[in-house]
Amino acid sequence: MEWVLQVHLYRKYFKMDQQKLFIQIALNSWNTQISRAEKVFNSYSDSDFLKQIAPEKNRIIYLYGHLAVYHDLLKETLGLGTSKYASLAPLFLQNPDNMESEMPSIEELKAIWNEVHGDLKELFNNLAPEEWFKRHNAMTDADFEKDPSRNRLSVVLNRANHVAYHLGQVVLVKPENI
Amino acid sequence: MEWVLQVHLYRKYFKMDQQKLFIQIALNSWNTQISRAEKVFNSYSDSDFLKQIAPEKNRIIYLYGHLAVYHDLLKETLGLGTSKYASLAPLFLQNPDNMESEMPSIEELKAIWNEVHGDLKELFNNLAPEEWFKRHNAMTDADFEKDPSRNRLSVVLNRANHVAYHLGQVVLVKPENI
Repeated sequence: MEWVLQVHLYRKYFKMDQQKLFIQIALNSWNTQISRAEKVFNSYSDSDFLKQIAPEKNRIIYLYGHLAVYHDLLKETLGLGTSKYASLAPLFLQNPDNMESEMPSIEELKAIWNEVHGDLKELFNNLAPEEWFKRHNAMTDADFEKDPSRNRLSVVLNRANHVAYHLGQVVLVKPENI
Repeated sequence: MEWVLQVHLYRKYFKMDQQKLFIQIALNSWNTQISRAEKVFNSYSDSDFLKQIAPEKNRIIYLYGHLAVYHDLLKETLGLGTSKYASLAPLFLQNPDNMESEMPSIEELKAIWNEVHGDLKELFNNLAPEEWFKRHNAMTDADFEKDPSRNRLSVVLNRANHVAYHLGQVVLVKPENI
């Protein structure tokens, strides 16, 4: 039964090889959006953070907190950890921007952003390839069996699109038309 | 040498299986963004199309043409076909929106949008799994050997993010805060 062992090893090897390539492609998409977002947010002054992206729309500070708190929750959605800033969800996730609400300072929000994205980087870099292809916590086993494409990687791609969506808004505060 | 044949078959089977799963994940990301974009654009009246997303920024009609013409070019970037609307690139890709420029009518742009995305749908649905993992036309063989994650699928993920980026702007014309 030598070939059975060989098949087993080859199967394991090629599967891992392919998986690693996919993971890299998906994480490239996520990392690109996070880098771009950090570059744009970090180019803004504290007074820019209080500007609205368009008349009567969200302020930069709101979108910054929105992304940080949503990504903090991503650990839970992926089933990889516990969120640290769930207390900020009413302010930044469950309600639109409100000029009257009391917000953390920009300095505090920057510390939260860096912590959240540092935590995710570590989690992502250390996750075993096969773990990426398991279901996320927002779906049942039965649904996952029907559609195995709804796995952790698909959640990360979805979140990358969500960053891009808000990034298109955040750049509007820049004077030039992008 | 029975096991050699078995290994070959298993290797082929599992590689294809994994590839198909990842292609589905990536195309889900693209299709979701295109469906959302179509839903938002189609909710706008002809007069909405002439509104700017924010003061002194692009109009809806420009972003609609921008996405349609960029996606028409995607066929060339992927090395899967010839663009049909390269003549519109100066208007919608190489220059920002200009109120003075003469544009195709909204009706014409809608026909172009539908044709471009219909063409892509057919190309994408008929592409053999292994073809998705080949390099795109915007890079050399040498660069691809160094980084095989820069393949056709990664281009499609990149374009999905680009749609999301502009979609975040296009929704700003809606009265509610999104």
